[in-house]
Amino acid sequence: MRYVGICQYDGSSYSGFQSQKNASSIQDHLELAISSIGLLEERINYAGRTDAGVHATQQIFDFSSESHREKNQWLKGLNSLLPNDISVSSIQKAPEDFHSRFDAIKRTYAYIIYTGSTRPIFLKDYVFWEKNNIDIDLMQNESNFLIGTHNFSSFRGSKCTSNNPVRTIDGIEISKKEDFIVVRITANAYLYNMVRIIVGTLLERSTGRLQKSMQDILESENRINAGKTAQAQGLFFLGAEYKNFSLIKPTPSNSFLSFLLPLNK
Amino acid sequence: MRYVGICQYDGSSYSGFQSQKNASSIQDHLELAISSIGLLEERINYAGRTDAGVHATQQIFDFSSESHREKNQWLKGLNSLLPNDISVSSIQKAPEDFHSRFDAIKRTYAYIIYTGSTRPIFLKDYVFWEKNNIDIDLMQNESNFLIGTHNFSSFRGSKCTSNNPVRTIDGIEISKKEDFIVVRITANAYLYNMVRIIVGTLLERSTGRLQKSMQDILESENRINAGKTAQAQGLFFLGAEYKNFSLIKPTPSNSFLSFLLPLNK
Repeated sequence: MRYVGICQYDGSSYSGFQSQKNASSIQDHLELAISSIGLLEERINYAGRTDAGVHATQQIFDFSSESHREKNQWLKGLNSLLPNDISVSSIQKAPEDFHSRFDAIKRTYAYIIYTGSTRPIFLKDYVFWEKNNIDIDLMQNESNFLIGTHNFSSFRGSKCTSNNPVRTIDGIEISKKEDFIVVRITANAYLYNMVRIIVGTLLERSTGRLQKSMQDILESENRINAGKTAQAQGLFFLGAEYKNFSLIKPTPSNSFLSFLLPLNK
Repeated sequence: MRYVGICQYDGSSYSGFQSQKNASSIQDHLELAISSIGLLEERINYAGRTDAGVHATQQIFDFSSESHREKNQWLKGLNSLLPNDISVSSIQKAPEDFHSRFDAIKRTYAYIIYTGSTRPIFLKDYVFWEKNNIDIDLMQNESNFLIGTHNFSSFRGSKCTSNNPVRTIDGIEISKKEDFIVVRITANAYLYNMVRIIVGTLLERSTGRLQKSMQDILESENRINAGKTAQAQGLFFLGAEYKNFSLIKPTPSNSFLSFLLPLNK
């Protein structure tokens, strides 16, 4: 039996989603919890690999288990076994050939920029504090050049192992609410560090620190022309969409994140 | 020259505000930073001692220094020296005999209760997660019995060293916003753990776990009749007021806290 789950985590204390030797990953914690409840037949699949310090409000994962359990048995069991910075918000049955990663057609991330004058004491793990003035209109205009199908080599981290630098960005939306700017980006898939390099470049452009235009940077297909990789802390994986599978999404809880991020759109 | 400052901190990583041997306190960090900028003549005074894990949005402190510096020099200097979970938001000059603790006539705390169905992943250090249904009207009614001048021995932690158990509570306000309940309490001063024991008792009463009424608990003047001490994590020190001194309060930053807490009232 194949199950699909949605989980949420604060990535601050983890080496990232993916299991790594000698490091604490979200994948390891999920697999350990699943194994304690039902027989886990192989490693879990997941929609988006997030790095150390990156968070998720809706990470999608799937696993195969011979153990037939009701949705609520899985949910209650997993949440009682997981640490307090990881939670599973839904579990549903899926076709045997479903794959969280290969079947995802769209993935959405958000990056939170804090622009207040005082240090973001209570949000230090969740935002990037930009102290320079940001030209939001310029930021949105510049981001528009990235929409569509392009070679994104300029926004590709050096550790990227993908054979193909072409990706399709469906949209980049910049919204401002009080002292926060949220950059929300949806694409079919991403190169390594692509969102963080795009955000870093948009920040350098919109604060006047980078002269070359976004179009020139994109067309150069050269990482050297883009801005610095923005820190992991402000980045949230918001979820994925599937072509032939309808994911039962949990009602977003009304935490400060729903205040900042329009999760329910 | 005496200076008064307002600071904000996330208490998660500290042993509390007050300096202690072999522990990391907010007081030590502030004194170290002040000493690095100007000569600190004696230990700092402060309005409210907060325990380990308790936060503050406006803690007031004062210190005497021979070093004459402009407000902005102090602010910039201190914030560049403090860790990223402590910040100073204002510094002003005060009369030589001003004392943050002895001169305070009112102190306000807030306690944040989270009532959502899913684990508060991103707020785990800032809220108490109550899973039982809360009767808000009962909570407000019960809290009204505490208003006024009373012997608060029933709400006094065992480590309390005060000679006098009488305090005056000006008001307790219960407000609900989405999945959060905020208990806001203003008093002249507090016994040790008084706010946390009051909140713990209100929670046990309003979820039906404690039969004795608040009035009976108060009048018994016996700690054994009250509820458990609520955890430190949900507690925030919001500030103090002074009779003959007008504190220049910083504009609250529009973080998730201003969303939850009506700081500007």
